[in-house]
Amino acid sequence: MTRILVTNDDGHLSPGIHALADALRPLGDVVIVAPQTEASAVGHALTLRRPLRVEQFGEGVYAVDGTPTDCVNIAIDQILTHKPDLIVSGINKGFNIGDDVTYSGTVAGALEGALLGFQAIAVSQQFTREEWDFTAAASFAAQLAEALLKQPMPGRTFLNVNVPMGKIKGIRSTVQARRNHITKVARRLDPRQRPYFWIEEASDDWDLDEASDHHAVNQGYISVTPLQPDLTDHAAIDLVKALI
Amino acid sequence: MTRILVTNDDGHLSPGIHALADALRPLGDVVIVAPQTEASAVGHALTLRRPLRVEQFGEGVYAVDGTPTDCVNIAIDQILTHKPDLIVSGINKGFNIGDDVTYSGTVAGALEGALLGFQAIAVSQQFTREEWDFTAAASFAAQLAEALLKQPMPGRTFLNVNVPMGKIKGIRSTVQARRNHITKVARRLDPRQRPYFWIEEASDDWDLDEASDHHAVNQGYISVTPLQPDLTDHAAIDLVKALI
Repeated sequence: MTRILVTNDDGHLSPGIHALADALRPLGDVVIVAPQTEASAVGHALTLRRPLRVEQFGEGVYAVDGTPTDCVNIAIDQILTHKPDLIVSGINKGFNIGDDVTYSGTVAGALEGALLGFQAIAVSQQFTREEWDFTAAASFAAQLAEALLKQPMPGRTFLNVNVPMGKIKGIRSTVQARRNHITKVARRLDPRQRPYFWIEEASDDWDLDEASDHHAVNQGYISVTPLQPDLTDHAAIDLVKALI
Repeated sequence: MTRILVTNDDGHLSPGIHALADALRPLGDVVIVAPQTEASAVGHALTLRRPLRVEQFGEGVYAVDGTPTDCVNIAIDQILTHKPDLIVSGINKGFNIGDDVTYSGTVAGALEGALLGFQAIAVSQQFTREEWDFTAAASFAAQLAEALLKQPMPGRTFLNVNVPMGKIKGIRSTVQARRNHITKVARRLDPRQRPYFWIEEASDDWDLDEASDHHAVNQGYISVTPLQPDLTDHAAIDLVKALI
């Protein structure tokens, strides 16, 4: 029996997670363990300073008052009766591409799975306020999950999937794009004239790289990027030796 | 005039951040922008769903009710009068080594600096409940900062420094160690007999790698690891092509 754990960062009420779980059910036993409320941009956060609660919502659906990383840990150690064969995180409303993957709770759910030694996929879908449709992303996630179960990735490699809106031209194996980050923080005044600050959506100044996830989705292709948790810049080891 | 931004994840009241700022002051103008309260293990989280407040605590010390990533963004866009030449995050109470760097708020502060195009260092110090002393870590951070200002790292490379307790045998340029993660979650009952869960400290099952940060600090060496934000597993690109 194939067992699949599904999590996300938009919360257990998000339609994206149910579209994903429904698409994966033909492959095996699917259990959802997801945050109680939206936990976007929480990165790879782990809740260590307070205890966590788990609430069940019907058959095979659990909500945790924590992050996607918390959900994966609690699922594996406390909720699931057997270890999963695969962890799938998503479907996120909005891309998780390029340098932004390190902020993403969706990607962190899959990263945590990979660190714990499981096959894992993060799935994100382009999103605008007017329009979103998880059909293509859910169907591709199921197809990729089936292939991955037959031919697992080595070591701690996991897959980051991004699906554009509209007609899909094909699928590409990509690298993480580079974005030239520019911070924008908005300053406003409250009714008592005290300032408060909003972190704004970052502006888009992407490096042009035809092999990248950003380029693939912009061209109408589904992007699949193999990611892994080692941040070492091996090329800089000697530069550091010259410094110290 | 050299300008240095100092942040951390233990909060602006932590003695580690003041030891660091004091050691860096001979190099130039130092401003502290740090979380109001402890924000350990928050990873690379960005606060997007609520506004943030900034409070000043004396000359050049600011507290933000958010994460280290929030602090860096608000500092650069709203608090500092000039762009910094260097961002230093720490000194964290406890190592940030191996795969655990992706959970670390301390490392995330430096990662955010690197993504924004600045030179950046994360500094962590071994810590036990009985004993901690930031002297060696602060003094090494200042020495490394001075060297880095003269000879900056290329691209988005930043430095992750870990300092062991006791007598320092030397300094090593290292790679990120691999840890075989095993989840432990403790289940307890509240006075109303309802369960709640604590995520426990992960157990230590490190891969033996003599080039790693974990090995260096265990041998009594200061570890300096060059990190960068690209998670792509380039070796797996062709494996993904075979799947899709």
